[in-house]
Order: sequence, then C-alpha cells, then structure tokens
Amino acid sequence: MSGSKCTRLSGALVKQVLESVDSVLFDCDGVIWRGDQAIPGAAEVINLLKKNGKKVFFVTNNSSKTRKMYADKMTTLGFSVTEDEVFGTAYCSAMYLKTVCKLEGKVYLIGSNAMKQELEAVGIQQTGVGPDHISGKQIDWANVPLDPEVKAVVVGFDEHFSYMKLNRALQYLTQQGCLFVGTNRDTRLPLEGGKAVPGTGCLLQAVETAAQRQAQTVGKPNHFMFDCVASQFGVDRERCLMVGDRLDTDIMLGSNCGLKTLLTLTGVSTVADAEAHQKSGCAERQGMVPDYYVESIADLLPALQG
Amino acid sequence: MSGSKCTRLSGALVKQVLESVDSVLFDCDGVIWRGDQAIPGAAEVINLLKKNGKKVFFVTNNSSKTRKMYADKMTTLGFSVTEDEVFGTAYCSAMYLKTVCKLEGKVYLIGSNAMKQELEAVGIQQTGVGPDHISGKQIDWANVPLDPEVKAVVVGFDEHFSYMKLNRALQYLTQQGCLFVGTNRDTRLPLEGGKAVPGTGCLLQAVETAAQRQAQTVGKPNHFMFDCVASQFGVDRERCLMVGDRLDTDIMLGSNCGLKTLLTLTGVSTVADAEAHQKSGCAERQGMVPDYYVESIADLLPALQG
Repeated sequence: MSGSKCTRLSGALVKQVLESVDSVLFDCDGVIWRGDQAIPGAAEVINLLKKNGKKVFFVTNNSSKTRKMYADKMTTLGFSVTEDEVFGTAYCSAMYLKTVCKLEGKVYLIGSNAMKQELEAVGIQQTGVGPDHISGKQIDWANVPLDPEVKAVVVGFDEHFSYMKLNRALQYLTQQGCLFVGTNRDTRLPLEGGKAVPGTGCLLQAVETAAQRQAQTVGKPNHFMFDCVASQFGVDRERCLMVGDRLDTDIMLGSNCGLKTLLTLTGVSTVADAEAHQKSGCAERQGMVPDYYVESIADLLPALQG
Repeated sequence: MSGSKCTRLSGALVKQVLESVDSVLFDCDGVIWRGDQAIPGAAEVINLLKKNGKKVFFVTNNSSKTRKMYADKMTTLGFSVTEDEVFGTAYCSAMYLKTVCKLEGKVYLIGSNAMKQELEAVGIQQTGVGPDHISGKQIDWANVPLDPEVKAVVVGFDEHFSYMKLNRALQYLTQQGCLFVGTNRDTRLPLEGGKAVPGTGCLLQAVETAAQRQAQTVGKPNHFMFDCVASQFGVDRERCLMVGDRLDTDIMLGSNCGLKTLLTLTGVSTVADAEAHQKSGCAERQGMVPDYYVESIADLLPALQG
C-alpha cells in the first residue's frame, strides 16, 4: 500500500484496504445519511460489510438520540444494525461518567431527553431536562437552591439552553470537586442547503467561560469513543478503518487512535481542506489528513459485490 | 512624581496627583458602590471633586441600565450627578453603532430593556427584548423568519438569553455585511460574599463560537468608552485619572488611552494581582499595572477637605 496520504480510494485499492481491516467505524450524519435520507447505497455497503465478516460500528457526536433511537432510525432506512453497535455521545458520556470518573452522585444536566435516558440506563441520576426560565434578581440567581447530591455538570445539545441553566452550571461548578463533562465541541450542526444551527460547542463554550474551567469532552476527536468500542468488542486498532466526513472530528479521532482513515465527500469537509492541512507543515494538522478519500461510501460497493 | 508604578496613594501624594488632573473617570460597581450600597465616603469624594472644579465621569461596562437609570440611582445614594456624565455600555453601544458604524438598518438585539431604550434614543430601531422560547425542529430553526432590515447583531447582558436567540444571531450573522457588536467581555458579575453570576462575556462567546466571527466590543478596556467621553467634553488625556477596581478592564482602559490610573481595593482586583502583572515581564500585562492604589476612594477625602 502507498505511504502517501489522501489517496483516492478506487479500483483494486478498495479491495486491498478492506482486506486489511476487520472493523469499520462509521460516522453517521454526512456519511451514511443526511438528515432523514440515507446516502444512496449506504445501507447496502453496511449490510455487505457485515455479510463479509467485518465488525461495523457507528460513532456519532450527536447527543440527542439514545442507542435505541439510532438503531430504530437505521432499521427504518434499511440498515441491518443492532443497538450495541451504536456509540453516540449520549451513551458514551454516561459510560465515561460511570467507568472513567466513577461518579458517585447526581448529574446537573444541560442536555436532551436521550442523555437523561442513557444516564438512567447506567444507574446515574440527573436533575431533569426541559425549559428553565429566569425569575427574580441577580442575588436570587447567585443563591439558587442547589441539589447537594450533584457532583458533576454535563453539557450536551440542549435546545432549552438558557441563561438560568448557564447560571446553575456556574453555581455547581464553583463547588469543590464538581466534575465537568461535555459531550462534544462541534460548533454548528450543518443542515441541507448550506444552512446550520448552533452546536453543543457554543453552549459548552458559554459554560466554560462562566466557570473559568475547561470541560473534559467525550466525543470525537477524543479517543474515549474508540476506547468505548474497543473495550466492548476487542477491536484491533491496526486492523480498523474510521470513515467520516469531518477532518477535525472523524479523521482526527482515527489519527489519535492509530486507525486507518477514510474521508467521504458527502458531508462537511473537502479534499481541498485535507490538502491544506497536509501542506500546512503543522504537526497537529497532519492528524486531519485522511489516508484515503471517496466521493461516497457507495464507492465501496463494487469491491463488496465482486 | 515617582516613575515607579503601583504606588500607594497617601499623604501629600494625593493632593499632588489630584492637582495634576482636570478630569476623573470612575468605574461604578466596586468603586463608588457595591450592589445597592454606596462605598462609605464615595459620595462626598465625588461631590468635593466637582466642587474643586474637576470634571467627573462614570464609565461602566454594565449594559443593564440607561444613563437616566444610573443618574437616578446615584442621586438616591447621595451623589451629585447628571445623566450626561454617565457612560454605560447600553448608551455607548448605541453611540458606537450611530457614530462609528454609521448603521443604517435595524439591530437584532440580545440585551436588556435599557439597551433598547438607548438605541431608540439615538434613532436606531431594534427587534425587541424579552424571552424567545424554542419550538419546532432544527430545520425550522435554520429557516426562522429574519427581519430583512436587520444589519447588525448586538449582544449585551440578557437574562433571557436562550438557544433560540443564539440561533437567530447565527442566522443574521451569516448574512452578507451584518455587523457584530458586543457591549463587553466581562465573564462574571461579582456579587457580595464571593458569589457571582454569568456575565455578558459568556453570551458573547457562545454567539462568536456559533458565528465563527469575533464581535467588536465597545466596553472597557476598548478605548471607545474614553473616546465617547473625550469627544463630548474635550478631556485632555494627560490630565485625566481613571479610577477602577478591575485591572483587566478599568486599569487597562486607562493604559490604552494614556491616562493616569488608580486601583481601588473595594472591588475585584488586589495589589497582589497588580504586582503579579508587573513582575510577569509580559508587555501586555504591564498595561494592567496601575500607577497608584488606595484601599478605598474615601482615602482621597482628606486632600479634598483640606
């Protein structure tokens, strides 16, 4: 195989690369689907990879769905997937708090109903989700009643994010020993037509600025998401391929964990972005250069069918 | 006068320094009052300075009050002050948009009722204040109806800050030519007893992260607040003293504008903080070392009474 990076994956090289791996990790949005529509051919690729004996996993920074919600969506779109193959940041944050932090106490949660469910599934209590509107004056905000059992603040995507939630997070985080965990740092959620809405990174940045502390983040490019998969399924990182559409999260995760990396052009990043990183001469940016790229993961189909 | 910095201002030196200036700029919270209580002796100091022919001005990063609201509060606390001597960031942001940006169009406002009033007072229309709760789905948020007349996003303190406001700001800021102004970057509002609530800096950081753009900020330490005073009252910066309790905003403003600087210890910063900046050897941090310090501005009283 060639030692150069950012090679177009086509022809005989596809089969060669697929034969060199036992496991394939896929990002979801921009890779196997866009919004509510499957990428054409993606379901067939996933199903054939599994038929050919590959382990397939899904790793997504999106914290707004449980593993079950992802598996249900995938099934609807024609993917043959089970819940335990899905690693979203709602689930992985709960696992991080339980297995790495060994949290004994409640979570003050800025996040979704899915995060609440994943925390509960591993036996961690939390303070509830939904709107938290403001009332009273500054001095009331500073003295807002705190739950004495709370030992961690967790920030994920929360459409009900508000000044009051930011304030509560600050009050908890100034207490001795309070843990601070974020699901991910994605600053925008890209939508069709070049549109976008604010991502969890914006909310996390606000809380970090208030608390004058950095959160530990669980999502890509942090290696924890891979560790989570590897510890449950015994993945050999030298025989594992990470497939994603974002250089700063997906490809960086692959580089951080020593995996082979494949950029697919159905989402956020372009080959020009990757080449700019490659030419930068900056060591950190080399981690954002994929080994290979494809127009779409459907480009893997001929090799799998043949 | 001594060439060394961070000198305690006492004895004969007080009179000497006061004689070397025609104008004195005071920060408010932590300097002339704390919360709703005047610093003992502060009103007398202000009133005597004026009686002795000094021009006195108030420059505050707090954006939640109009000039009139400040003047009313000061009058209640015994200060002899008129509206036009008060420069808060609600007023200064409006002036900045009008005189520097020469804005022709509306403002999408994340801020207070006071900011709305100050904008209206200079003839700038804005989109309204108060709660903005979320409904619908991501695609609805990305396609939220925008006011075609909006040509600037302004972020100040807003207790009703919400994900929906963050989203609206993002949608406006991705439009061609939309201006982006913040009142100030203070990350916390300090309250009595070491407590604090999140400051405008947290909200601004969230919007900047979403928009992937930096706002122009009006408040201290940016020189615009001094320019605003100077252009209206013809202040000679060589004969002007800036008095404040924060090194990173008040003292830095004074240094940025070539004013004499006096730290008062009734608020946030300490002499140890100032000495740490002085010893750092870092050029930027030298701007946070005051010329003088006092325990309280009441220390100026004997020289003014004598």
